[in-house]
Amino acid sequence: MLLDQQFLRIPGPTPIPPSVQRAMAQPMIGHRGNETSELLRSIKPRLKKVFGTDQDVMIVTGSGTSGLEAAVVNAVKPLDEVLVIVTGAFGARFVKICEAYGIRVHIYEVEWGKAFDPNEIRNYLRRFPEVSAVFATYCETSTGVMNPIHELASAVKEVSDALIIVDGVSCVGGVETKMDDWGIDIMVTGSQKAFMLPAGLLFIGVSERAWKVIDSNPNRGFYLDLTKYRKDLDKDTTPFTPALSLLFGLDQALAMMEKEGLENVYGRHTLMKEMVRAAFMALKIPLLTNDKDASDTVTAVQPEDFNAEEFRKVINKEFRLSVAGGQDRLKGKIFRIGHMGYCSPADVLQTLSMIEIGLIKSGKNIELGKGVAAAQRIYLEKGENMR
Amino acid sequence: MLLDQQFLRIPGPTPIPPSVQRAMAQPMIGHRGNETSELLRSIKPRLKKVFGTDQDVMIVTGSGTSGLEAAVVNAVKPLDEVLVIVTGAFGARFVKICEAYGIRVHIYEVEWGKAFDPNEIRNYLRRFPEVSAVFATYCETSTGVMNPIHELASAVKEVSDALIIVDGVSCVGGVETKMDDWGIDIMVTGSQKAFMLPAGLLFIGVSERAWKVIDSNPNRGFYLDLTKYRKDLDKDTTPFTPALSLLFGLDQALAMMEKEGLENVYGRHTLMKEMVRAAFMALKIPLLTNDKDASDTVTAVQPEDFNAEEFRKVINKEFRLSVAGGQDRLKGKIFRIGHMGYCSPADVLQTLSMIEIGLIKSGKNIELGKGVAAAQRIYLEKGENMR
Repeated sequence: MLLDQQFLRIPGPTPIPPSVQRAMAQPMIGHRGNETSELLRSIKPRLKKVFGTDQDVMIVTGSGTSGLEAAVVNAVKPLDEVLVIVTGAFGARFVKICEAYGIRVHIYEVEWGKAFDPNEIRNYLRRFPEVSAVFATYCETSTGVMNPIHELASAVKEVSDALIIVDGVSCVGGVETKMDDWGIDIMVTGSQKAFMLPAGLLFIGVSERAWKVIDSNPNRGFYLDLTKYRKDLDKDTTPFTPALSLLFGLDQALAMMEKEGLENVYGRHTLMKEMVRAAFMALKIPLLTNDKDASDTVTAVQPEDFNAEEFRKVINKEFRLSVAGGQDRLKGKIFRIGHMGYCSPADVLQTLSMIEIGLIKSGKNIELGKGVAAAQRIYLEKGENMR
Repeated sequence: MLLDQQFLRIPGPTPIPPSVQRAMAQPMIGHRGNETSELLRSIKPRLKKVFGTDQDVMIVTGSGTSGLEAAVVNAVKPLDEVLVIVTGAFGARFVKICEAYGIRVHIYEVEWGKAFDPNEIRNYLRRFPEVSAVFATYCETSTGVMNPIHELASAVKEVSDALIIVDGVSCVGGVETKMDDWGIDIMVTGSQKAFMLPAGLLFIGVSERAWKVIDSNPNRGFYLDLTKYRKDLDKDTTPFTPALSLLFGLDQALAMMEKEGLENVYGRHTLMKEMVRAAFMALKIPLLTNDKDASDTVTAVQPEDFNAEEFRKVINKEFRLSVAGGQDRLKGKIFRIGHMGYCSPADVLQTLSMIEIGLIKSGKNIELGKGVAAAQRIYLEKGENMR
């Protein structure tokens, strides 16, 4: 097999576009010099558009989880009462972080593979008037569910002043995000998903309302104290040495998204989701989520008559095609296909054509080309708006 | 559409593997220093294996055509009589080069889209005992024909001592080449095809018999005088400044071919040819060549009920998928798909899935997925040996 070739179709880290790779290969510059300030000055307004907010979006060097932790330590005080909506493994991670800080957590959990209902959250919250923050997951990477984040704040506000804190790691940049319009107080995402970059950067949007809570929090830790980032970003710098090559890459990734047009980026992700789903439906292989709850960026497939883990091994050995397995209670029961960031409808067709071969090699009796054809039909029906 | 993505499926230049790109990005070194000598020393024996020869393979900086010219000016004297076997546009180019040097050319032309028959060449040659060189094309890029080069020399030798000079530009490195065993006297190829590199380097294998003719040639020009290259390659250097970044890339491209195994490289190309051909047969779209004459590296499709040029525009607009058009008398009548070098069976499946969509968009009534399925079946039947 071709030594250099691999197909990374996990829900992040995602493949890096060549022009982003080239941008990241620029010579290192001083992190306190003018060039870095110019870079940050250029990036700031563009990140705001992706987040749908008029507030500056903080740029922090770290993995996605440190972004979730930043939200917790800044917006919540120990002994505060919070609600965490758990729809999968990443909702559960919010619980663990809160517990590590001695925060009192109410858990509202829905069956993994389903989205939460904002009205039920509102009804549940009525019982806990002391809750100061509601944590939710936009795209639950572990199940391929996209939660109705756009409806969450308005439902919560009927009964509570709690901050709305959202993990948007595996979708922001690939799906519409309107922090201000939707009333989201903190939105966190990472560089390694829809932003088409390696892991290492966090982007954290913070509402005016959230800043008030954060400013009044006496203990925000040190490295993740967002007020430090706000103060320095105002002066086009960062409190700690940033991952500069990732900033070079971010500049180019944003340029790519802008050239394609954010609406087109979002349309492409929706189209890819529909192509993947149509293919598995045509092949009569069950999906974990229903159409309404399905994420635009990752699809979870729940095979009934073949082993998900064996299948993953087969396609990896055959093509170096990587899809993700299940996490936690879904381990061994599903596999997950990432279709976000640097991924096109043509890449989806290629992935599906390899998957069909892998299914035959795994002993599953399918009609070759049937899934690809279903995806091609979706493309022909709905792909027009992409141009 | 994704700004960075394009699908280069013309019969060369071909896509560059990432590790070759990285190798080419190495800092420049002195072309008369030890490092360059070490590079050439490492490359020499490895090129010989690809050419199937015990003789050193000359490395010349230039485009493919300068390699054809080098063969002419070194091995043929003005007023000499030669035979050029023309099976397409690149055979015809040998004629033009010979004519530019006042060489007397006999042209043996076969219908474009068919391979020559070595026995007929032998019979033709009987009439021209003065012919000192026979020029032939291994893969005729313009028609997707692979000529029976392995049988040419033995047929010719029955009636003539003429040198056998072969244009191997669009296939050597992707298909088996045994210069010594087959009795080929000069074999020319370029870097931008099966060698997975940008254009700019020529590799020219020369037999002992050919060197004798070359050494006795009083006028070999200057830049393309191969005796200069032989003398310097012996000392691990080059007579003129070489395209060093391409040598860095060649080192890595050879490493990739060696790691895959040359037999596997050749098997992959044969498999890809069969996948492409099976797909078009399943879609009932005619191919220019028959199975026996078809090249492992490029396939010419000859549509009957849709316009080849319009179709090329459609897939390029839709996906940035590039396939080649027809050349010369085949212009507008065919399109050609390159499947060589950095191209895998998975890439072929992707190309076919895009082509099917392009056919529908061109108004051709096909069953979606049918071509892909035929290619998938070939992969499942014959792809096993590739691992």
